[in-house]
Amino acid sequence: MKVVIVGGVAGGMSAATRLRRLSEDTEIVVLDKGPYVSFANCGLPYYLSGEISDRNDLIVESPEQLNQRFRIDVRPNTEVTDINPAKHQVTVNHDGSQDTLDYDKLILSPGSKAVIPEITGLSKANNVFTLRNIPDVDKIMNRLESHPATAAVIGAGSIGVEAVENLTNRGIKTTLIEAGDHVLPFLDFEMAGIVEKELAEHKVDVKLNTRVKQINNDQLTLSDDTVVSADIVILAVGVRPDTSLIQKVGIKTGDRGGIIVDDHYQTSEQDIYAVGDAILVKDLITNQLVSIPLASPANRQGRQVADVIMGINRRNKGGIGTAIVRTFDLGAAATGLNAKQLQSTGIDFMTVHTTNSSHAGYFPGGTPLSLKVMFDSKTGQLYGAQAVGKNSVDKRIDVLAVAIKSKMKITNLPEFELSYAPPFGSAKDPVNMIGYAGENLLEGLSENIQFDQVDEAVRNGDYLIDVRTPEELSRDGRLPNAVNIPLDSLRDHLNTIPKDKQIIVSCRSGQRSYIAERILKNDGFNVKNLDGAFLTYSAAYPERIIH
Amino acid sequence: MKVVIVGGVAGGMSAATRLRRLSEDTEIVVLDKGPYVSFANCGLPYYLSGEISDRNDLIVESPEQLNQRFRIDVRPNTEVTDINPAKHQVTVNHDGSQDTLDYDKLILSPGSKAVIPEITGLSKANNVFTLRNIPDVDKIMNRLESHPATAAVIGAGSIGVEAVENLTNRGIKTTLIEAGDHVLPFLDFEMAGIVEKELAEHKVDVKLNTRVKQINNDQLTLSDDTVVSADIVILAVGVRPDTSLIQKVGIKTGDRGGIIVDDHYQTSEQDIYAVGDAILVKDLITNQLVSIPLASPANRQGRQVADVIMGINRRNKGGIGTAIVRTFDLGAAATGLNAKQLQSTGIDFMTVHTTNSSHAGYFPGGTPLSLKVMFDSKTGQLYGAQAVGKNSVDKRIDVLAVAIKSKMKITNLPEFELSYAPPFGSAKDPVNMIGYAGENLLEGLSENIQFDQVDEAVRNGDYLIDVRTPEELSRDGRLPNAVNIPLDSLRDHLNTIPKDKQIIVSCRSGQRSYIAERILKNDGFNVKNLDGAFLTYSAAYPERIIH
Repeated sequence: MKVVIVGGVAGGMSAATRLRRLSEDTEIVVLDKGPYVSFANCGLPYYLSGEISDRNDLIVESPEQLNQRFRIDVRPNTEVTDINPAKHQVTVNHDGSQDTLDYDKLILSPGSKAVIPEITGLSKANNVFTLRNIPDVDKIMNRLESHPATAAVIGAGSIGVEAVENLTNRGIKTTLIEAGDHVLPFLDFEMAGIVEKELAEHKVDVKLNTRVKQINNDQLTLSDDTVVSADIVILAVGVRPDTSLIQKVGIKTGDRGGIIVDDHYQTSEQDIYAVGDAILVKDLITNQLVSIPLASPANRQGRQVADVIMGINRRNKGGIGTAIVRTFDLGAAATGLNAKQLQSTGIDFMTVHTTNSSHAGYFPGGTPLSLKVMFDSKTGQLYGAQAVGKNSVDKRIDVLAVAIKSKMKITNLPEFELSYAPPFGSAKDPVNMIGYAGENLLEGLSENIQFDQVDEAVRNGDYLIDVRTPEELSRDGRLPNAVNIPLDSLRDHLNTIPKDKQIIVSCRSGQRSYIAERILKNDGFNVKNLDGAFLTYSAAYPERIIH
Repeated sequence: MKVVIVGGVAGGMSAATRLRRLSEDTEIVVLDKGPYVSFANCGLPYYLSGEISDRNDLIVESPEQLNQRFRIDVRPNTEVTDINPAKHQVTVNHDGSQDTLDYDKLILSPGSKAVIPEITGLSKANNVFTLRNIPDVDKIMNRLESHPATAAVIGAGSIGVEAVENLTNRGIKTTLIEAGDHVLPFLDFEMAGIVEKELAEHKVDVKLNTRVKQINNDQLTLSDDTVVSADIVILAVGVRPDTSLIQKVGIKTGDRGGIIVDDHYQTSEQDIYAVGDAILVKDLITNQLVSIPLASPANRQGRQVADVIMGINRRNKGGIGTAIVRTFDLGAAATGLNAKQLQSTGIDFMTVHTTNSSHAGYFPGGTPLSLKVMFDSKTGQLYGAQAVGKNSVDKRIDVLAVAIKSKMKITNLPEFELSYAPPFGSAKDPVNMIGYAGENLLEGLSENIQFDQVDEAVRNGDYLIDVRTPEELSRDGRLPNAVNIPLDSLRDHLNTIPKDKQIIVSCRSGQRSYIAERILKNDGFNVKNLDGAFLTYSAAYPERIIH
């Protein structure tokens, strides 16, 4: 059997090596239009600052190594220019000369390509780069040798934010320009606010709700007509499946050109399979076909398609998508659906925010960990989670990713037996704690109101009580229109609180205000807890805090 | 309603505060025989070195704070001397005066106490301490002020190892004496070997298979008649439920005095409940009643018993037990059953060891992470996992703890969508990787042999091939009786390998030898992979490696 694989990075190379482990006598050919296969896609931004200092580290395996160990015929700089499913043949172009290759099975793993936005002057600019592969990085590094003082990154997705961090760490004054209202679109608005604060503290100029209209040498004209100077510009507005040829030859594609495959990775054409960034997969929560262009699923899919081809019973079970990005000292991560995505499904869901120490409060080194979890208002099924903080963000989001993918409920989280010793966690781990908080909502012991609803509620007559201490208020700032009654004197002030109004309670993180909510509820008041309290509200609206 | 709670630390205080949040009008009395409630039990060892530098940090909440915020009547230094279930009454002793208290509901959360081994001279020694509470720590700190040069810790469980670390960090030359054949009994022998190496590298003298026969001032005579000098001795040979009174009044107990409770934490006596270290809980894998004396379950149980008493439908779902300990730069953790426990159940299980980098190999700062997973040979159900390494041990064990508690299978692990960016993980996370390795075993693509079986197998005629490079062999050492054929030249040496023998392949971590296994199997050889390869074997038997 002869298997031809198009694309030699995550999905393609995982398929190739698994095929060889399953069979010594299969002929395996890997074609890649680029000069490098099996390179560390996700490491590229870190080479810009020198955090990854050796360019060789970006190349995981060479064609020679792959041939020696796996007898894989790896052909870089070889672009597939035509596919003939009827003849089981592909046409390739290598150094300008055409050739045809027969295949018994064809695996397409073309990946995705950078989206190029419409900006006047872009095609003439010589200081604008994408950041998708090693030739891109080589060009950027070449430009960086002339020691640019300023940079602009267009697009605040993962690659954009990583580029910003690494350019800044190189000492370059960087502007981040994002068309949406927050950075890192996998996060929701208020969680992204924590990241935006971190960017600002590192002197990054973040321009939200802003587009670039024109590029003229080192001058960028923005949608608000301000001009930003940037000696180097990184374009990172997103990616889309690199499937123009695949579409041209009639292989069925869907949303934004993503290849449609069945559970066994077979495309609309027999003996042609596809994996990786370029395919659509079933979202396990919505059951819709979506694009999840991440390295981990690509690797899994590559391995699985090899199994399928060799007759092992394996199928693509769909995905939830888990993303994480480091931004200076912060980690920011999400899994499952975010609020925006959930709202578009029409599902009735509850939301809970907590902020706890990353490990036991009495042990040095703990840092605030902000968590958000969303779950079904009736069944408690978990739909999405987000985490932002300096430590252990990856740990908590991984635990929640397992829970979400396994269709667990908010009521499962308190039962998790997570590791605890003071340097690592808490007797009540933050994941247990958010489970308790969510369970209280689901069971009706607590009700909450979100950061983006409280101002309107207060305008409409609700009575907002902040139960922090006066010292905290003067140190951290006040919520607009809140009455201050510290928690420990709340029971002595019950007669000052209007019985006929909807009460909203807030504190710093939402934990003390939950105690206040219970005291007041047990006394007959109608009470809601401001979810996430001051920390979440002030992350979303730092400008509304009264100092 | 009046609820009396005996024991004011994890379980008892969680019950008390949850009760108050559920009800403003319940009278809540917490009795504790010690001078402090709500103290940071698990933080105590870290105060010895000054890593926790402020003694106040060990006391999470004072009786005054608890009264102010939760209206809980906290009574320290108050020992319960009798319980009368028929009268719903307890007798207490406070400062020498007796008193009786009525209760509607009684919650017992007495915790566990240190086991005191039989050692000649122990009762007369004035330099021997346990490490269970704040008075213990005060006594130890008092002794440390005289700047002892040497210390001995008896017992290499979690508290013993933490005591060793903190005494060593204080500059005291410490001997660790353990009756068993390895440190940290929650780990298996070969995983503990990695911790023992770390202890040795920090100049701790670890004496395994050794007991203390006699203590004579600062001289300890050991079971092998050697004498160790120790200016201070910490006794940490284990704990048992502190239930002598409870047994005396006829409340039903089981193994080692653990209180027997139903799913709703009710003891054999009506209106008497029990939680925490002192109760027996159902092991979710074996369905047997076991003791899991850890802070996390105690906190959960305390909260749940409050729910039960207030009429909320809540039940104890049993546990798997998850433990973690820091030892200098290493974390060591386990969840579910270990090999010894599994062997005693008679369950037929498979074992897989891996060592991968804690995050992407091409990104700086990754460290080796050793994982072990055990699962059912037929169904693949996960039974236990262990992790040892410098980074992210807690993350991986938490993910595995969720999987085990949720009765998942080894084949679920590859499907986990774990967060990946270079600073945090790998496109194929170590948990995915060990899942793939285990799946290969379950599906028969790979067979393995354990570190403790290979020597005998080779003695009986099996043919052991080490596929590392000659450079690795001379740098790291050789396995006894192994033939060296580097992986990348294996296909050229097939004719030198005996067709009629059982072949065993090994490398450094087991990954290359798995490739070798597949090459040889596909060529008709009868092959097993040495599970965990050189790294696991040499962690278990460093003395057998040939340099």
